[in-house]
Parts: sequence; structure tokens; C-alpha cells
Amino acid sequence: MENQIGKEMYELLEYLFPLNRSISGNGVRETLRIIQNHIPIKVHEVPSGTEVFDWIVPKEWNVADAYVMDETGNKIIDFQKNNLHLVGYSVPVNKIVTLSELQEHLYSLSDQPEAIPYVTSYYKERWGFCITQKQRDNLKEGKYKVVIESELKEGSLTYGELIIPGRSEEEIFLSTYVCHPSMANNELSGPVLTTFLVKWIMSKPRRYTYRIIYIPETIGSIMYLSKNLDHMKRNVISGFNITCVGDDGHYSYLPTRNGSTYADKVALNTLSYDHPDFVEYTYLDRGSDERQYNSPGVDLPVCTIMRSKYGTYPEYHTSLDNLDFVSDEGLSGSLDVFKKCLKTMEENKKYRIKCLGEPQLGKRGLYPTIGTKSSSLEVKDIMNFISYADGDHDLIDISNQIGVPVWELYPIIEKLKKTDLI
Amino acid sequence: MENQIGKEMYELLEYLFPLNRSISGNGVRETLRIIQNHIPIKVHEVPSGTEVFDWIVPKEWNVADAYVMDETGNKIIDFQKNNLHLVGYSVPVNKIVTLSELQEHLYSLSDQPEAIPYVTSYYKERWGFCITQKQRDNLKEGKYKVVIESELKEGSLTYGELIIPGRSEEEIFLSTYVCHPSMANNELSGPVLTTFLVKWIMSKPRRYTYRIIYIPETIGSIMYLSKNLDHMKRNVISGFNITCVGDDGHYSYLPTRNGSTYADKVALNTLSYDHPDFVEYTYLDRGSDERQYNSPGVDLPVCTIMRSKYGTYPEYHTSLDNLDFVSDEGLSGSLDVFKKCLKTMEENKKYRIKCLGEPQLGKRGLYPTIGTKSSSLEVKDIMNFISYADGDHDLIDISNQIGVPVWELYPIIEKLKKTDLI
Amino acid sequence: MENQIGKEMYELLEYLFPLNRSISGNGVRETLRIIQNHIPIKVHEVPSGTEVFDWIVPKEWNVADAYVMDETGNKIIDFQKNNLHLVGYSVPVNKIVTLSELQEHLYSLSDQPEAIPYVTSYYKERWGFCITQKQRDNLKEGKYKVVIESELKEGSLTYGELIIPGRSEEEIFLSTYVCHPSMANNELSGPVLTTFLVKWIMSKPRRYTYRIIYIPETIGSIMYLSKNLDHMKRNVISGFNITCVGDDGHYSYLPTRNGSTYADKVALNTLSYDHPDFVEYTYLDRGSDERQYNSPGVDLPVCTIMRSKYGTYPEYHTSLDNLDFVSDEGLSGSLDVFKKCLKTMEENKKYRIKCLGEPQLGKRGLYPTIGTKSSSLEVKDIMNFISYADGDHDLIDISNQIGVPVWELYPIIEKLKKTDLI
Repeated sequence: MENQIGKEMYELLEYLFPLNRSISGNGVRETLRIIQNHIPIKVHEVPSGTEVFDWIVPKEWNVADAYVMDETGNKIIDFQKNNLHLVGYSVPVNKIVTLSELQEHLYSLSDQPEAIPYVTSYYKERWGFCITQKQRDNLKEGKYKVVIESELKEGSLTYGELIIPGRSEEEIFLSTYVCHPSMANNELSGPVLTTFLVKWIMSKPRRYTYRIIYIPETIGSIMYLSKNLDHMKRNVISGFNITCVGDDGHYSYLPTRNGSTYADKVALNTLSYDHPDFVEYTYLDRGSDERQYNSPGVDLPVCTIMRSKYGTYPEYHTSLDNLDFVSDEGLSGSLDVFKKCLKTMEENKKYRIKCLGEPQLGKRGLYPTIGTKSSSLEVKDIMNFISYADGDHDLIDISNQIGVPVWELYPIIEKLKKTDLI
Repeated sequence: MENQIGKEMYELLEYLFPLNRSISGNGVRETLRIIQNHIPIKVHEVPSGTEVFDWIVPKEWNVADAYVMDETGNKIIDFQKNNLHLVGYSVPVNKIVTLSELQEHLYSLSDQPEAIPYVTSYYKERWGFCITQKQRDNLKEGKYKVVIESELKEGSLTYGELIIPGRSEEEIFLSTYVCHPSMANNELSGPVLTTFLVKWIMSKPRRYTYRIIYIPETIGSIMYLSKNLDHMKRNVISGFNITCVGDDGHYSYLPTRNGSTYADKVALNTLSYDHPDFVEYTYLDRGSDERQYNSPGVDLPVCTIMRSKYGTYPEYHTSLDNLDFVSDEGLSGSLDVFKKCLKTMEENKKYRIKCLGEPQLGKRGLYPTIGTKSSSLEVKDIMNFISYADGDHDLIDISNQIGVPVWELYPIIEKLKKTDLI
Repeated sequence: MENQIGKEMYELLEYLFPLNRSISGNGVRETLRIIQNHIPIKVHEVPSGTEVFDWIVPKEWNVADAYVMDETGNKIIDFQKNNLHLVGYSVPVNKIVTLSELQEHLYSLSDQPEAIPYVTSYYKERWGFCITQKQRDNLKEGKYKVVIESELKEGSLTYGELIIPGRSEEEIFLSTYVCHPSMANNELSGPVLTTFLVKWIMSKPRRYTYRIIYIPETIGSIMYLSKNLDHMKRNVISGFNITCVGDDGHYSYLPTRNGSTYADKVALNTLSYDHPDFVEYTYLDRGSDERQYNSPGVDLPVCTIMRSKYGTYPEYHTSLDNLDFVSDEGLSGSLDVFKKCLKTMEENKKYRIKCLGEPQLGKRGLYPTIGTKSSSLEVKDIMNFISYADGDHDLIDISNQIGVPVWELYPIIEKLKKTDLI
């Protein structure tokens, strides 16, 4: 079977991959512009220096070029070849240094000698280059020309936002981030999946309003909360931070701080039936924007569903988190999980059987007319659904109670509605 | 030791065994009439066509005779020999059929070739015979005379009821069913045990009022609820569906839908001390009248204590659930469990020690006067009872907390009452 | 490393060891007088005959001498050599008896032939001697002179009390007992540890008021409660019964009857980090004054932290619970646990982070300025503390949630206070 949607997702990811994203700058703008070709997000700019809770929006950073050249004129480290080579937010440099001076500005991973690490220095001005340990070990004594044609200036922080209205003002919130340079699972899988999920949301009638944002991690979520917290606390019933959704690993669930919000309930129900081998983390394992959404006083019902969790796979935050690390199937499988979660919320409500005692299903053609040893087994799910349709249990509760996925309950609900029993 | 009561129970079961019970008809009436020789149940009739919640009381069914005769005049299937041979509620028939036509009306169990299955068709008019797979496999081509002298007519549904008043209007409810033809554990053990339990109840002073019914399963409990629901919701504090109590298997407990009603509390406490190897089912395993008593909006505190649970033993709903499958000991053992449950409720209350600090048991002759290493062990149970007799824990709570069966606490309560400590 | 405090504790224990304590009498007075050399406890006397809840303060008992002499004039059992030889509260005797008569008044342990048992008869007048089984087995036929120069008279029950005022009227309650003759772990370790704990408490500024008592077990705690219950129910937030704290065994925790009082919370948190191999008993295993403090209607939040629990070690209540059974390290280790518990309560409160979203720790020098794979690991504890500092969780809750002992959180709290974040 052709995985058409997986292919399309992968293509968008591939297309966005080379851009030099950071927490600000033209890489983010270009990323959002390309996403606008798919869905109508609005792009906003927040000026450097804006106070957002305890933080200040930093200067904007852009890079024209960056390299290290040896005495023979070879660019031995070249930002044009891999933007991970340059420490994020490096200040401009143009000078000749000795190897020993250069070493002070190099970052590598001794236990992953083939990987270029991903390093940033957003809030302290410095410069640096990231290379493989293998390359570093072979650097020769001598002079090196270091060039970083970067610009760190008063500018703005860029983010994308889309509000898709539904029948209700209650909101489902989706947050993904666009601040990492060329890495595939963390993070491009997030904005790519979100984009295709939005297409699907927009293609259907909706009970809920959807609020979707594409932001730089940490500073972006803090900024967004500082602008929208009151509204979101009133309206958001459930939300997901979308990241690390492109590889083929086990699914992962990272709960809210509270642990039993509506988002947790939906995520746990969906994963427990769809991917019973999912890995359940604790809030102590958090590390992405759920940190902000769950911080004291913010307390939004936002949890995270991933495949291989950030920080747990060796490729994480290195050049090995590349286009080979994600796949069509990885992306489309995750998309399917998120669709199931949203569908569950769209359909979820408390059902109540209309009669007292069990209804006579036989006269409605829903029960075998012949009574044998095993009659009741054939109608187990419908009988169990009815027996918990008491007006107190919602659809997810019933699914949990009777051990049947919500998606297998939809046809039962249809039948019961048709026969006027609920 | 002679098991006199077990013998008497078995004899009543044996006597009732041959009657052709169904959800209506003279088999039920005769069964109730025989039980009236033991206890003063009132017999009620509910006309066919009466609406009871979502159901309608069906026509009454009686059978004079039924058989299948081969070309040589042999009755190869004979209702007179075993009433399970006839599908319950079969319509009258008198015709000659080919083997192939006959086959469409035969029921057998390929995986239990020696067993006649129990089959019914209450709510769709059809006819049929049940035979062993072994017999079926040996049927020869040819003509067969099929005779069913049954009558399906406007009549009534019959049930028995007994209210035994107690000092309180609060009620303990016992429900058992009388709609199965010749099968011993499911169901004759139920009405037989109930009858002997009632004798015992009537022989003692009572705190609670007891409501006992003998009904056809499902339609009977629905009918009874439709007449008595308001009263029962006000008064019933606990109840048991009594079925499958005659064999020698492990005890079983099937909880209420709620799972923590007073009935559950009593059943769990009793079984956990009396038969710690009891099997704990979930409400999803239900299949008898607890389905109605626990349905949404009905929500009565009725659970089920059994030995081998219906549906779990191979003899269930076949001719193998016969007089060999039940025993004196099976029946009297179960009776003992129900007596313990009722006694627990009769005795249960919140006790409160009258003094602050531990009472001085020594001066009351309840504590060793010599203090050694092990003094406190000798009085462990009484000291533990006292320390939880705080006016918040009832007798069952205390029993659960201190790991001592309620029946071992009765003498302790006596001593403490005599010395005016509670 | 010299264990100076352990040494001092052991010395006090050694010094108190020979005194003939009982539930009343001069042994208790002398014990308290020696403790007064260390801390300013007040000594109180309660007259014999005073009604205290369900009990009456017994007569006072003192012993001048006691022995059993054989025909050759040898004192074969001599109270002067070991006060355990005399059954506690033995009445005066001076007569010649046969071996057979003597046997009726002897106590020994057949399964511990080398141990003199500890036996008392507070509430029934009798006399007796305790000897090793080995000695008993070798007693020869003949006449024995039995002399007990004891006095059982109207007198008083003696106890010590110390109230150390704090900034708050809320109290932490410490109870230990001084009614056992020459036994080291149960009980002298209790009053000795309490004495050194009090020195430490008095050396520091205090949030809470501390109420400390040295009483005879059972009758003493009942007497004390009968005088102070109302005040204690209003003011005591947490308390510990201090006994069996001198040996080198595993730590033990015996909960309150309620099981989740503040005392339990503190004890469990402290032990789970400080001695994760501690043994958790249930309230059914109680046997000391926690029986009174947790009795219905008293319900004070008093649990017990021990090393080897009374009743569980073979030396318990015999002459083998001697100076060899306890150690400097045993005593000082326990002291440290109690200090940790008290410190935790002194420091405990609900913290609340002042900003919304995570604070920017980088600008305060609390977060690495370079972002790598592992940046967040370095600041895990501070980040986790912040994320639960929500004004709902107290320090112990946070410690439990994030898996870090409270004592490792103190420096974090300091840093956050300094940077005005909490």
C-alpha cells in the first residue's frame, strides 16, 4: 500500500531541512513562509527587548556565512555544508587564531566521534564551531582563519499562529517549535506533522476551536503565554506539544504536571489501545515546551505524545538526527495517533441509556434471537457499552472500563442512536 | 459428621429437577408450589403483554409432549426423557420432514459430543430440538415425524415473593431464578439454597427486613424492578443474586457495577476469610440478573456470590449440569457462606470504646496480670479491636483492618459489652 | 573520625544503666535527676490513687534488697548483681521455702537458656525471681531462704517534662520512657537519645514549641494525656515516641493509627532517603506508648521511629539487652535521623515561584549559558524544585515528587531566595 500522506510529509520535511533556523531570524521566517503554502497560518513578529514574564525577547540573529580555513586555504569547517557547524547565536568574528585558541571555541562529542553536536548560546555572547570528534582529533598545529559573518541585532522573534474556529469557544491547543537548524526528528517532524494535522482538521466540521502555534522553543512559548494566558486558561480544554514524531521508535507519553488532565486522559486512552507498548514517562522527564505550559500558575492541560523522546536516543541534538532518522511511516503513524486523539475529543460526551434495566436488543435486531451458551459473547461490546452509559461515564471512561477502543465504539453508538436507545 | 442440611437441600433439588421450567408456564408454577411446602412464598401472576420497562411480558408456554420419530416408529428424540431436548418456547409442530429439513432445527455441540445443549428462543417463534453431537452424527437419511404438542398463548408470567419483616424497614434483597429446565447447578441450586436460607432467616430475630424473590431470569427481574424500583431504591441496603451455588468448585464473587457497595463489602470480607482462594470476577463478567439490578438508573447494591461461575464450567447450559454435578457439601457450604454474610450485616455497626486511652483490661480479667515478653500477643485481637473501635469503623472495617474474621470478633464484643467498655 | 556525640550518649547510658527503674519509685527519680544535669527538665509527682482515664496510679515501689539464699548461705539469686532478677513490683517476703515452692515464683526462658527474662506484675500483688534457664535447671532440692526487702506504699508516680518555647504555639511532641531496669536498647537508648536531641533543639532558634516527656510506659502516657489532652489536641502537629534507638540494626517505622498524619509524612520522607532499607511496620505491630497517643478519641499524630523494633530481636526484655547490644554509632545514627526529622519540620512550608513560566535562570547565573545535549541535566534538581513550587506542595511533597532529599533542597532554596524567585 502506497503511504501517500507519509510521502508528502517526508517531502515537506526534506524541503525545510536545510534552512538555518534558530530562535529568531530569517530561517524561521522562511520555514513559516513555506508552511503557509500548505495552511493559512498568520506570521507575527515580537520586537527584541519585549519583556515576556521573567524573560526578554533576545536580539535577532542571522548568518551570511561562517567557516574555519586552514593555512592552505581549505575551509575545514563550513557552515554552508552543515549549519550545525556554527554554535547558535555566534557573534561575528574574522581573525587568525592558533590551534590552541581555536580549540577553546570547538565543541565535539567524545563518545559519538562521528557526530556534529548541536550547541547554542542564546543568552551569552560567544562564538564557536561544532565538529566531529574525529575531525577534531586530526587538527594540526598551525594558524586558522575564523570567519563568522553573523549579525546579532535589534530585530524580532517570529512565530506562526492559526485559529480554526469550531462550534464551541472551547479550544484544543497544538504547539510545535521551529527553532532548530538541520535536524529531522527533533524538530522538523513536529511542524511537519502539525501542518498535515491542520489540513485534516480544516477538512472536517468541528465541535472545538483549534489554536495552533509554531514558535521557537522556550522563549516562544513563554512569549505566547505572556500574551494569551488569560484567554487560554479560560478556553483551552486540552493540548499537545508536538515534537519528535518522525522516527520509527516506540510511542512515548509525557504527562502534564497535574497528571490527570483531559489531555492526559485522551493520550492514555488512545495510546493504550493503539500502541499498548508505548513508553510512559513522568513529568520529571520533561524537557520541551510542556515545561512552560505546565509551570505553576500557567497550568494548562498540555501533554506530549512522541515517538522516541528527545534526549533518549543517541542521535538527539546531533547531525545524526538527519533525514535517515525519520521515515514516511514514522511520520504518518504519528499523524494517525494525533488524528485519533482529536477525533476522540470531538466525539466524546457522556452517554445515557434511555430505558431502565437492559433494553430488549432482540426486538431491535441487535441481539441473537436464539439463546445458547455463547449468545451473550456475540454482543458483549454493545451490552457493556450500555451498562456503563449511565450519564456519568464519558466515552473515554466507557472505553477504559470495558476494554474497547473508542473507535470500535463509534458504530455501536450509531446503532443505539438509530434505535433511539441513547 | 452427617451433613443433614446438605442432604435435605440435595433432596429438594432432586425432587424439583425433572420439572419443565421455562420463563413462564406450569413448570414454574409447580416449582413454586413445592417450595411453598417449605416456606410461605406468595405466588404472583403477570399477564402476557404487560409492558415492563423496555420489555413486554411474553406469551405463556406449556408443553404436553414432543418427540422426533424415525421411520421405524422409534422416538429417537424424546422430551419425556429429557426436557432439554426441546428448544425452549418451540411452537407446535406436527409434520414429516426429511433429514435435511430436520437438521435445520437441530442444535448440538461439536466440542462436547456427549452433551445435549440448552437452547431457547423466547422472543422469536421457531421450533427446534437439542441432541448430542454423537447422536446427530449417526442420524440416517430418511423421513422423520416431528411432533411438538406445545401451546404458546396469552397467559401469564409467574413468580414467587416473600417479605420477612424485621425491626428495621431497611431491606436485604435475595433474588434467585426458576426458569431453567432440568439443570442442577445453573439453576436449581439457586432456588434450593434460597429456600433453606429463608428457613434460617425466619428462625431468628431480625434487624433487617428481607425481600426474597423467585423469578424467571432477565424478564422476571426487569418485571419485578418495574413494579418495585422506587421502594427498593429507598430501602434495599444490600442484596445477592443467588445462582450456581451447588457444585464443589472454588467460590466466586462478581461485584456490583459500582464495585464498592455494601453488598460488595460484605461479600469480600466474608469470602476473604472463609474462602481466601475465592475467584474475583469483574462486572464485565456478569451474565445473570445482576445485569438488571446494576443497570444505569436502577443501581441497586446487588452482587453475586457463586461457586463455579455460570459460563466458566463446561457442563454449563448442557445436560451435563445434572444431579452429579452438584453435591450435599457443595450446597451446604454455600449456604454457610450466605448465612455468614447475613449474620455479618445483622451484627454490623460502628463500635466506640467508651474510655480515652486503652482501657485497663487487667482489672477486668481480660489481660494477663504478669508482664512478659509475650503478654500482648495473648490479647492481640481484643487490643486491636479496641484500637479501631473509634466510632468511625464498622465491624467489617475493623475485621478488614485487623485481619480477623467478624465471627471471631463476636465473642470479643460480648466481653467488652459485659465489662461496659463499648 | 571520632564519634564524640555517640561516645557521650553511650557514657550517659552506661551511667544510668545500673539504676533500678520501674513505673514508680526512686530509680525513676534518680534517672531524672541525672538527666537534669544535662537539660532542665521539670520533675513532677502524681499521687498513688489518682484516677487517670480508665486507670488508677498504682502504689509506689522501692526495693532495698532481694535475694534467694541456699542452705549453705550462698545468695544464688541476687538483686544487687542484676536488678532483672526481681519481678517488678514484687511484694516483701522473708521466708524459707522448698525448691518446689520456689519454682512457682521463678521465671526463665526455655528457648534462651542464658538470658534472665524481664518480668513485671504491676497490677496484681505477687513476688517472683527471674533467672536463666540454665541456672534453674541446676537448682537442687532443699530449703531456700527468700528475702525481698521491698516496699509497696501510697506514694507517687514520677515523670519529667520540658517545654521549650518556639516562635509558634504549635508543638512537636517527644515522648520517651524511664520505667525499665537494666536494659539498654529498650529502654535506656530512648531517654538518652531524647536528652541529646533536646540539647540540640535548645541550641538553635526554633519555629515550633517542643514538648518533651520522660514517663513510665503506659500508665505514664495515660496519666500525661489525662492532664494535657485538650491542650495537646489543639497544639501538637507531630510527635514521636522514642524507644529502641541504640543498636546497629535497620531502622524501623511504626505508623500512626491514621497512617497519614504529619508525623508519618516526615518520618517516611526522612527514612526513605536517609535509610531506604528501613522496615515499615503497620499499626497492628504497635506495642509501646504510641498505643495511647493513637487511641480512639486521643488521636494524636505520634508515630515511632526505631532501629530494631521492640519485640522483634531476641535480646528484647532480657538481660541480653545489655550494654553490648547498643553502640556509639547506633545511638548517634538515630540521633541524626531525629535531627533530620525536626529540621525538616522547622524548614517545611509551601513554596511558590514568583514568576509565570520558568524563570530565566541563566541571567541569574543558575543555568549553563551554553546549550548542549546535557545542559538541563546539570540543573535538574533546581528546575524540578521550581516546577513543583506552586504554593500547593510543601517542601516534603516536593522532595517526594522529585526524588531528592529535603536536605539537598536547602541550598537550592537559598539560591532561589537570594535571586528573589521564591
